Amino acid sequence: MLLDKLQNFHLYLASQSPRRKELLQGMGIHFEILSTHVPEVYPAGLQPEEIVEYLSHLKLSTIQQDKYPDNSIFIACDTIVVLHNQILGKPKSKEEAVTMLQNLSGEEHTVMSGVTVLSPKGFQTAHRNTTVKFRTISDEEIHYYVNQYAPLDKAGAYGVQEWIGYVGIDYIEGSYYNVMGLPTKLLWEMLEKAVQ
Amino acid sequence: MLLDKLQNFHLYLASQSPRRKELLQGMGIHFEILSTHVPEVYPAGLQPEEIVEYLSHLKLSTIQQDKYPDNSIFIACDTIVVLHNQILGKPKSKEEAVTMLQNLSGEEHTVMSGVTVLSPKGFQTAHRNTTVKFRTISDEEIHYYVNQYAPLDKAGAYGVQEWIGYVGIDYIEGSYYNVMGLPTKLLWEMLEKAVQ
Repeated sequence: MLLDKLQNFHLYLASQSPRRKELLQGMGIHFEILSTHVPEVYPAGLQPEEIVEYLSHLKLSTIQQDKYPDNSIFIACDTIVVLHNQILGKPKSKEEAVTMLQNLSGEEHTVMSGVTVLSPKGFQTAHRNTTVKFRTISDEEIHYYVNQYAPLDKAGAYGVQEWIGYVGIDYIEGSYYNVMGLPTKLLWEMLEKAVQ
Repeated sequence: MLLDKLQNFHLYLASQSPRRKELLQGMGIHFEILSTHVPEVYPAGLQPEEIVEYLSHLKLSTIQQDKYPDNSIFIACDTIVVLHNQILGKPKSKEEAVTMLQNLSGEEHTVMSGVTVLSPKGFQTAHRNTTVKFRTISDEEIHYYVNQYAPLDKAGAYGVQEWIGYVGIDYIEGSYYNVMGLPTKLLWEMLEKAVQ
């Protein structure tokens, strides 16, 4: 079983996101948090799926493997929200969060996460998409959510695991944990390849 | 907004499930837990959707509204797992849990929840279905999960919010919280009708 095999490895998560930390813990994996500071800039002309793959790879690009124990495995992830082919990042203000949620209200959007795993075997990169459909959310509900939860650290200005995710989502198609910020089943399969 | 209107009501959740309690709290709703003990027996010949609606209604059938404050609202829910038209309830032993998970492995199944709301306006009952697809789960993984998590209190022998839900689910279609045990968006809409 993967968890047994992973006991022979040192795992590092290159993310400050408390959700990603929680999700990786939920997978039963022991790891350390790695602080990497890479400007999240990507070449023009990439498709959204290519952007999240590129950025997840970029987050591990400055790792100097020889400074870490043999059998180290590094994990990075990048998540974006795509509405009508437009990328929604993290809102810069409460006003921008309100506008984002007004745009998401009543619509289907796609949450995309790119994952990169760097192991002694080299790099693997992949992505997963999840469709999310919001019901029509009233302005009163949007203001309540933004004021109570201040979702400025979240792409698309919402957390699926918060109030608005409980009361405002008609359906999702795909991985729920991808919407939270880490496609856990995909990562499991990538780790299986890394330790084979 | 519904949460404002609900401040004029007393809410009661007729469930001992810690997940349902957590989900209702996540909706921002204040409530008390109600202990009801009704044998979960249903008439022969019902379809699965009819069974969960019937049982959620049954859980509120012994409520004597005149013993509670005016403006009381009662909530009950019943959830089942349906695989190839067969209902999976809670496993009676670890061995039965293992068999259930072996049957779910690699297959799509449906999680169905019936919800009943009893308010001064009377009864409302409805249900929601969510499709869940498990990847092929190895026997080693199944035994690990059953030994570590002892899912004997869960229909279908798994919790989507536990390890096996993180690493073993290909996709869901519908409400994630329905799979956890309460279709929160449906309940929100039923409560809106109850206080209109």
